[in-house]
Amino acid sequence: MKLLEERIKLDGKVLSENVLKVDSFLNHQIDPELMLEIGKEFANKFEGVGITKIVTIESSGIAPAVMTGLQMQVPVIFARKRKSLTLNNDLLTATVHSFTKNDTSEISLSKKYLSENDKVLIIDDFLANGQAAFGLVEMVQQAGAEIAGIGIVIEKSFQQGARLLKEAGLRVESLARVASLSNGEVKFINEKVEELI
Amino acid sequence: MKLLEERIKLDGKVLSENVLKVDSFLNHQIDPELMLEIGKEFANKFEGVGITKIVTIESSGIAPAVMTGLQMQVPVIFARKRKSLTLNNDLLTATVHSFTKNDTSEISLSKKYLSENDKVLIIDDFLANGQAAFGLVEMVQQAGAEIAGIGIVIEKSFQQGARLLKEAGLRVESLARVASLSNGEVKFINEKVEELI
Repeated sequence: MKLLEERIKLDGKVLSENVLKVDSFLNHQIDPELMLEIGKEFANKFEGVGITKIVTIESSGIAPAVMTGLQMQVPVIFARKRKSLTLNNDLLTATVHSFTKNDTSEISLSKKYLSENDKVLIIDDFLANGQAAFGLVEMVQQAGAEIAGIGIVIEKSFQQGARLLKEAGLRVESLARVASLSNGEVKFINEKVEELI
Repeated sequence: MKLLEERIKLDGKVLSENVLKVDSFLNHQIDPELMLEIGKEFANKFEGVGITKIVTIESSGIAPAVMTGLQMQVPVIFARKRKSLTLNNDLLTATVHSFTKNDTSEISLSKKYLSENDKVLIIDDFLANGQAAFGLVEMVQQAGAEIAGIGIVIEKSFQQGARLLKEAGLRVESLARVASLSNGEVKFINEKVEELI
C-alpha cells in the first residue's frame, strides 16, 4: 500500500535493526484518515470471503480493525492483555511471549462473541515473530470459528512471523512489508525486488 | 443520542446499582457503525470550536475517538495505562485511581504530540467518578494546550464525575446520561424529566 509505505518513510523512526517506531500515526498518535484507507484496503483484499467478525488485540490493533469493520459492516472484538490468569469459564485465553519486552502474558477473549458459525479476519498493527497473531489464532480456533486470514498493517518480513503463519496454512495480507531496517533506513520488500531487476 | 440509548437498553447489562456492562458494542466487541454515528455526534457538538487534537485513553476510548477524529479531520492521541513509573523526560503523566478496580495507576502521554497551540477535545467511553477524565485534563494542561471540552459516550450521572468536571469550568458533552441503574434497569436523565412532567 503506497500511501502507507510513504508515511512510514516520512514519519517512521528506525530505533535499531529490529525496531521501527510509528507512534506518530499508528501506535500512540493515530491518523484517522490513514486508518480509513487501511480499512478500505483490507476490505478489498478480503472481499467476497464471507467475513462475519474481526478479531484484534488492544491497543494499537483497534483503530485499523474498527475502520476495516466499518467498511465490511461486521463487528470487531478486541482481545485483552492480562497479566494473571483469573479463572473464568466465559473466556478464551492464550499465552503470548513478547520478544521485544521479554515478557510472557495472557490474552483473553469472551467466548460469547465468537461461535463455530463465524468466519474471522484477524487484524493487528505489527507482525514480527508472530506471537500475538498465533495467540489470536489459537483463541479463534478454541471457539470453533473459521479463520479467513490475517491482515497486518506493518510486517517485519525479516522476522519469522509471516513465514510461520503461512506454513501453518493461514492467509496473511500485509499492507507494508519491511525487508530491512539496516543503517537506520526502512527498505520495503518491493524496493528490494526492484533493486534486483 | 437516541440510537445509543436504545442500544444500551437493548444490549447493556446492569450488573449492580453502579455497574453497566456494554461489552457487546463498546468495551470488548465494538459496533463500528455505531462508533461512526457517535463520532458524527461529537463532531456536531464541538463544531466551529477549532479543535486540533483529540485525546483519549486506551483501550475502550480509542474506537469512538478515532471515529470523531475522522469526522473532524484531526489526529487522535491515546494515553497509555502503565503500572510503574519509568523515568522518561518525553512523557506527560498523571495518577488515576479506579474506584471500580480499587487500583491506582499511572497514565502517560508523549509530550511531542501536544503543544500550547493545540485545542483539545478529550473523549472517553465512560464517565463515573471522573478520575480518568481528570488525569487526561491534567496531562493536557501540563502540555500547555487548551481544553475545548470533554466528550463522553456514557455518563453515569448519579456519580460525581460530570459535576466535578463542570465545577472545574470544563464543558462536558455526554451522549447518554444514565440517571440510575436501580432494580436492574437503565434509566436515562431525559426519561426522568419526562416522568416528572
